[in-house]
Amino acid sequence: MALRHFLNTQDWSRDQLDAVLAQAAQFKRSRFGDQLKGRSIALVFFNPSLRTRTSFELGAFQLGGHAVVLQPGKDAWPIEFDFGTVMDGEAEEHIAEVARVLGRYVDLIGVRAFPKFVDWTVDRQDRVLQGFAKYSPVPVINMETITHPCQELAHALALQEHFGTTDLRGRKFVLTWTYHPKALNTAVANSALIIATRMGMDVTLLCPTPEYVLDERYMGWAEANVVESGGSLHISHDIDSAYAGADVVYAKSWGALPYFGQWEAEKPIRDEFKHFIVDERKMALTNDAVFSHCLPLRRNVKATDAVMDSPRCIAINEAENRLHVQKAVMADLIRHSPQR
Amino acid sequence: MALRHFLNTQDWSRDQLDAVLAQAAQFKRSRFGDQLKGRSIALVFFNPSLRTRTSFELGAFQLGGHAVVLQPGKDAWPIEFDFGTVMDGEAEEHIAEVARVLGRYVDLIGVRAFPKFVDWTVDRQDRVLQGFAKYSPVPVINMETITHPCQELAHALALQEHFGTTDLRGRKFVLTWTYHPKALNTAVANSALIIATRMGMDVTLLCPTPEYVLDERYMGWAEANVVESGGSLHISHDIDSAYAGADVVYAKSWGALPYFGQWEAEKPIRDEFKHFIVDERKMALTNDAVFSHCLPLRRNVKATDAVMDSPRCIAINEAENRLHVQKAVMADLIRHSPQR
Amino acid sequence: MALRHFLNTQDWSRDQLDAVLAQAAQFKRSRFGDQLKGRSIALVFFNPSLRTRTSFELGAFQLGGHAVVLQPGKDAWPIEFDFGTVMDGEAEEHIAEVARVLGRYVDLIGVRAFPKFVDWTVDRQDRVLQGFAKYSPVPVINMETITHPCQELAHALALQEHFGTTDLRGRKFVLTWTYHPKALNTAVANSALIIATRMGMDVTLLCPTPEYVLDERYMGWAEANVVESGGSLHISHDIDSAYAGADVVYAKSWGALPYFGQWEAEKPIRDEFKHFIVDERKMALTNDAVFSHCLPLRRNVKATDAVMDSPRCIAINEAENRLHVQKAVMADLIRHSPQR
Repeated sequence: MALRHFLNTQDWSRDQLDAVLAQAAQFKRSRFGDQLKGRSIALVFFNPSLRTRTSFELGAFQLGGHAVVLQPGKDAWPIEFDFGTVMDGEAEEHIAEVARVLGRYVDLIGVRAFPKFVDWTVDRQDRVLQGFAKYSPVPVINMETITHPCQELAHALALQEHFGTTDLRGRKFVLTWTYHPKALNTAVANSALIIATRMGMDVTLLCPTPEYVLDERYMGWAEANVVESGGSLHISHDIDSAYAGADVVYAKSWGALPYFGQWEAEKPIRDEFKHFIVDERKMALTNDAVFSHCLPLRRNVKATDAVMDSPRCIAINEAENRLHVQKAVMADLIRHSPQR
Repeated sequence: MALRHFLNTQDWSRDQLDAVLAQAAQFKRSRFGDQLKGRSIALVFFNPSLRTRTSFELGAFQLGGHAVVLQPGKDAWPIEFDFGTVMDGEAEEHIAEVARVLGRYVDLIGVRAFPKFVDWTVDRQDRVLQGFAKYSPVPVINMETITHPCQELAHALALQEHFGTTDLRGRKFVLTWTYHPKALNTAVANSALIIATRMGMDVTLLCPTPEYVLDERYMGWAEANVVESGGSLHISHDIDSAYAGADVVYAKSWGALPYFGQWEAEKPIRDEFKHFIVDERKMALTNDAVFSHCLPLRRNVKATDAVMDSPRCIAINEAENRLHVQKAVMADLIRHSPQR
Repeated sequence: MALRHFLNTQDWSRDQLDAVLAQAAQFKRSRFGDQLKGRSIALVFFNPSLRTRTSFELGAFQLGGHAVVLQPGKDAWPIEFDFGTVMDGEAEEHIAEVARVLGRYVDLIGVRAFPKFVDWTVDRQDRVLQGFAKYSPVPVINMETITHPCQELAHALALQEHFGTTDLRGRKFVLTWTYHPKALNTAVANSALIIATRMGMDVTLLCPTPEYVLDERYMGWAEANVVESGGSLHISHDIDSAYAGADVVYAKSWGALPYFGQWEAEKPIRDEFKHFIVDERKMALTNDAVFSHCLPLRRNVKATDAVMDSPRCIAINEAENRLHVQKAVMADLIRHSPQR
């Protein structure tokens, strides 16, 4: 039996995703289980985290397992990912040994590794995650690298709860770029695009200029998804028409790929589009849409207080869902792992 | 039912405090329980900790629960506490979201947040703790901010054990300032004053000059406590008369509030009073008093080796009691929480 | 009953070590137990760790206990180890209080504290570990200081597994120095020497020059061991004759003691001996030897890819054994602790 990882939702069949979402809804009704009894997961954070860490650690506990949190710190654990290198530089250890040893200790490995933000052609290879997946003898979970599949499932579950049905087809979904003082990772934007199209929604990617369109890999996955699941995909730079009739508004800020690593050059462009903030005027154009965001969110920069504190805001519920979908993913991977 | 927090002992009735102390004594005789079975607490450390962290983490474990330790590091998690701000500065997240999301994951939230030591009028607002208490949907516990109520209970229990009775009325309690090379937080001094008066003891606050008297809020609480509980409150700058006949000597160093944030100006004053060290000569003036301190303690600066190694020193026992009183506080808060 | 610590294998009888190894093998066949039910261990890391931390934390979990991980950071917890000092410098706390308080909270204390690498006459006193052992009321475990006894047991178990017998007498064991860009701790080298001689093997210490011979304390223990256990001890600077007929090749890099703290002066010497790398040519001289290393290992610097990826490499298995031998050590110490 081939080892099943959770690197991207795109690698999983729709049936597999639906089963995980159903299990997550079940875990939300009844928090505890023994699916991880005596089992363990290593949470490897190359970038710091509070929410992801808390939800995974508690998820393991609630299912009878134990999470070991490894925080080598920001870029502080120099690991070699290439094969055949003479390791006389910074790296003290090869990913082959790191993953193999961890895999002797634990039953699952979660990995968070953000882009280095210097060269997108390198970052888009997702080398840390792929390195763990290649060498680990146990399933690997993406805890956010250049996509964020756990966030995808949490969002999908929050929408299913809101609309009272697991069938999200035909809903108008707007993924809107918003201003942020810094150029941020595209991971959550990529993920929102993937899961919304996968669920068969009518998706509009609203961003300031064509330069803010996402990487072709994820645009391509989204296009393939609408073919398979129904729904549609549109790119828009016009705020009012994008919001018109929307059922879901999902906000995220990200850096424009053509300026990747040259963020000073991008800054003047980004600074022109502060008016992309999600506010009551824009929300009034929608079909009484729900609003969400992956958090953390800068109030009155990305969304106004009025939007955040409105009953239409489901961001807190989405955040809670991280706990339950991650339990479902861990339970699924353990169930499909070879016996030890 | 209003949410019960544990922010200060002063917010709790004497009956509530007595019940927690009785439960703590019970936990000391028999370490384990299921009061937190399946439950969890987030320990949010804005300032580092080893003892507080160990005792809370083990306390949760011994009651069947799990503690998640969040250490954003010294001032490293920029959170917005004001309402209505345009968050285009350092803060990435508002306390409203931080507290609400954590409260979806865990059943209790512990917060440690020391003063910034720049402006006491700001620090005395205790904004981090109060912010969590305002927005959290689950009980919040003070793990030391500008008071240290868990230390208070640990000390009270240690005195009850020493004197063999829960009734501490009529004992002479000396809270003595001692030298330390740095100006320190007044939290434990405030707390010692509050709990000693609450327990109806005859309390002397011994400090170098009137400038070292504590903040009026805590002096006021202490005055109200002696009215309600019996006992008395005196301020003294004379070592020998303060120690005379004492049953309890509690030592702590702190910075003088009039010089708050201008510590270079305070230094010459503090340096004059190194002779406030607790030594055998002073202890000989007492009624065979017990000595205690919250730890960490610089030997031969705050107290001599002879005092620390004497059988009258109950500091280690007081430190152990942290474990048991915190279990009692957690169990009490969980019992009084709304069902989830 | 005197308190039993695990500071060095040399302090334990051969029967005690054999019992721990047998228990470890049993834990490897069946991972779980209740030997630490409700018990706890503090893992005090003065130096960072991922593997040691993961294996101890999971070991405690698998036996029903809980590990509290204390990472004061690199030299970041200033503790006083001398007695009688006026503590008006950096140190905020004396080891007496640190160890006594921790010992009230937990049932075991693990300590990792590397040398400071300035003065070997100071580092060889192992003051942090010895300080904990002196004042702690509960057993103390060496998690690597100037020796690494847990690694010793993991290695011994891996050899017993490989050779299919607990009797390792008569095997030829080569401990070979290898190049590394930095001067490293001698702890694992000391430990390999001690355990190999303790097990009655014919041991060759292969190093570039007489300056790389290990400290006289460990050379002396090794000499005493071969008298008691049989086997032999040789020092060699000739690669080919050392490898000839070997059954076990164990590699480690370390700094030469005569240059301790003057590493720039040692660098030219070390740089001359890059050819000590473990490669296929050298391994072909052996009696089909197994190769091992404590990890982390720089590939193609200390050993070639071909050696690391060969079926004769047991380094991953040795790393896994850390989990099981540490469980056995913890269970043994708890069993021999006074009742609480």
